[in-house]
Amino acid sequence: MDPSEQQQWKKAAAEAAAKLVEGGMVIGLGTGSTAALFVSALGRRVTDEHLRISGIPTSERTAEQARGLKIPLTSFAEHLQIDLTVDGADEIETGSLYLIKGLGGALLREKIVAAASKRMVVIADETKLSARLGTLSPVPVEVSQFGWQATQKRLSELGGNPTLRPGKDGKPCVTDGGNYIIDCAFGPMENPKEIAHHLDHVVGSVEHGMFLKFASEVIVGGRDGVTVLRKTNG
Amino acid sequence: MDPSEQQQWKKAAAEAAAKLVEGGMVIGLGTGSTAALFVSALGRRVTDEHLRISGIPTSERTAEQARGLKIPLTSFAEHLQIDLTVDGADEIETGSLYLIKGLGGALLREKIVAAASKRMVVIADETKLSARLGTLSPVPVEVSQFGWQATQKRLSELGGNPTLRPGKDGKPCVTDGGNYIIDCAFGPMENPKEIAHHLDHVVGSVEHGMFLKFASEVIVGGRDGVTVLRKTNG
Repeated sequence: MDPSEQQQWKKAAAEAAAKLVEGGMVIGLGTGSTAALFVSALGRRVTDEHLRISGIPTSERTAEQARGLKIPLTSFAEHLQIDLTVDGADEIETGSLYLIKGLGGALLREKIVAAASKRMVVIADETKLSARLGTLSPVPVEVSQFGWQATQKRLSELGGNPTLRPGKDGKPCVTDGGNYIIDCAFGPMENPKEIAHHLDHVVGSVEHGMFLKFASEVIVGGRDGVTVLRKTNG
Repeated sequence: MDPSEQQQWKKAAAEAAAKLVEGGMVIGLGTGSTAALFVSALGRRVTDEHLRISGIPTSERTAEQARGLKIPLTSFAEHLQIDLTVDGADEIETGSLYLIKGLGGALLREKIVAAASKRMVVIADETKLSARLGTLSPVPVEVSQFGWQATQKRLSELGGNPTLRPGKDGKPCVTDGGNYIIDCAFGPMENPKEIAHHLDHVVGSVEHGMFLKFASEVIVGGRDGVTVLRKTNG
């Protein structure tokens, strides 16, 4: 696959998502390469159309990008509920719209923002789709620095083949929240709900990258243009 | 009740626990006023009897006290399993030995250490016992600073009457892990397991102060001397 082609697919999805934004909305701003394309597209609407919105960023990186584009930022101190969050994902299970997120290192804030949102739209290129969650991506787990070795042992007992994520300087990667990340390669999952449930109960785990029942819809850019996947109930 | 009498009860429990320690053990060192009495008693055994042990402290405060007493410290990098942890509790349900902990602000580390321990002995004076968990103490929940207002809202929906814990300087209390604490006054609980389960799933909650199925035994100091409560299975 041509990387510039994949970039076009991401961009198409991001621009379709930016069209969903309406004046007056509080928007959750995701983190990662696809989310950054959405923030760019949204910034253009703010400038060109004088669209009045405010954003809650999921990382320092995204906050910086948004400020550069003159997107007004707000916080949970002002708004307890977010109208719409747009974020990328590392893997999307097509049938369920279950997600794996957090390869970008911002999963805790991303999950807090998604959980506070009325609607979460995920944007991705078609290479992120899979029939069974865990096929493409490990599950990142954000863990307390204190006792991470004991937490890693428990993740290993759950079958996660855990590895501590290294940072750029050879030391462990540290999140915005001051935690480490352990990547768990579960492989294709028979029962994602059960794995997520076990991860919720792991002492020392701050949050994990399985986002089940979060996405309302997924906008996918690909070879055949833009497709929207929606959850149907029943 | 005479405060100096309560202090004697705590001390009696702490000294009984210190007798359980054997040479070669890795000991989890709790945090709080009762745990500090245990660390003192343990320090005396290290000095007087040349007892060879190593300790894993649950807070910076406890680490400092242990260093002052020449108790050798170790970490999870050296030992993934702890032989015995001795810690206090804010409330103990007598029938189940379920605990509420974390009024001292160290619940995350206390839980990580307790979870990695073969045996957890809780020490307390008799004023900490109740017939139903939640009667005496709110449940502290350690939460991410980011989005704490949204997390507080979810805790409120669970019936927790949540309040952000203030620190000494008027600003919110910050834990060793860099998080805030929200105290949840559930009142006497019909079903502690269900509440703990819900708390495990709250996005933005790092850890909570309900310790169910952690304590192997509870050593209680009181009017009638020292009593040991043990879980009987069946």
